[in-house]
Amino acid sequence: MSKLRFRISMSLDGFTAGPNQSVDNPLGIGGMRLHEWAFPLSAFRKMHGLEGGEVNESNTVIEESLAKIGATIMGRNMFGGHPGPWDAREPWNGWWGKNPPFHHPVFVLTHHARPPLELEGGTTFTFVTEGIEAALEQARRAAGGKDVSLGGGANTAQQYLLAGLVDEMEISLVPILLGDGEHLFNHIGDNLHGLKIVRTVATPNVIHIKFARSPTGKR
Amino acid sequence: MSKLRFRISMSLDGFTAGPNQSVDNPLGIGGMRLHEWAFPLSAFRKMHGLEGGEVNESNTVIEESLAKIGATIMGRNMFGGHPGPWDAREPWNGWWGKNPPFHHPVFVLTHHARPPLELEGGTTFTFVTEGIEAALEQARRAAGGKDVSLGGGANTAQQYLLAGLVDEMEISLVPILLGDGEHLFNHIGDNLHGLKIVRTVATPNVIHIKFARSPTGKR
Repeated sequence: MSKLRFRISMSLDGFTAGPNQSVDNPLGIGGMRLHEWAFPLSAFRKMHGLEGGEVNESNTVIEESLAKIGATIMGRNMFGGHPGPWDAREPWNGWWGKNPPFHHPVFVLTHHARPPLELEGGTTFTFVTEGIEAALEQARRAAGGKDVSLGGGANTAQQYLLAGLVDEMEISLVPILLGDGEHLFNHIGDNLHGLKIVRTVATPNVIHIKFARSPTGKR
Repeated sequence: MSKLRFRISMSLDGFTAGPNQSVDNPLGIGGMRLHEWAFPLSAFRKMHGLEGGEVNESNTVIEESLAKIGATIMGRNMFGGHPGPWDAREPWNGWWGKNPPFHHPVFVLTHHARPPLELEGGTTFTFVTEGIEAALEQARRAAGGKDVSLGGGANTAQQYLLAGLVDEMEISLVPILLGDGEHLFNHIGDNLHGLKIVRTVATPNVIHIKFARSPTGKR
């Protein structure tokens, strides 16, 4: 069966976004600092339609995280726009413009129903109101044998972690402090819900720590 | 000048001790899980007067953290005993018995004056009521050219970090969640106060991330 996996950048003090996230500042104050290690990489540039860039161990980690992904799940907060019901006259269509970098079906968890949104380059946003298990089922079906990426944000990742549905998790630990913001591991309790460390890739500006479901399954 | 440095074990969710610390359970609930990686190591066993044990990369990290240390600073909470004034009839003499594993002068930060306590094996506890800078000055003098170890706990480490007085910090990141407890980076703000990552040692059950003061000094 296709795996559910995610990679997320996290500060040393556990934040995956800075404080005061908004439509104008989706990563929160200082949140951009979590992603600076990725900007020069060729894998990141390629994802955004740019050529060139650095090729190093972090690049390999990003390429691996993007490989064999057939569908993505994300929370409403990550899809963006103002919270609450969709604005029918001027609906929010995501942060990513006409040709989003996914190029596969994306499932958005929301409490507010909305018809699917088909954009250029193979990205279709489907809005799922029936909860995380329904979204995962739909995403797996749409992935056509490939894996499903859990796009984020932290709240959505927490729900899947708590339910024991995550097969692989990679923390890209950035050696900075944000001091405040969105915490990945709040409300997760005192265990990793079946995940065990399987690999570490250390570089001077980010440390990638990969976890996978242990053979014994859910803890 | 002698450096002030510390190594501390921290869970993936940022805790350096579990919740509900007490005289009976000084590491808090689940806090022992932070240190399990160290117990089999020869360096840990040697520190407690035992022979044998494993020799691996973590062992080297521990040996390095203990080498060239001439004095230790710790907080009252780490020294232990019930908070408040010392019990004159039955004074608390630390967790470590008659022959503590330090074998050098130890300076305990406290609000309650008390004469120095000389134990076997070269360990003398001196109680400092004049604050963190006074303790550091005394410890540096006592260290005789060697470095000063910041023994902990988290609250004491935070005070020295905030003051920009830490020269080296090594986080032994343990891939577990504790869910609650004592947080190392609470109230530290959004920067590492002059420290930059200088080395990572990754093993399957702990990842050591070392920081040192950058040449440009305090940030």
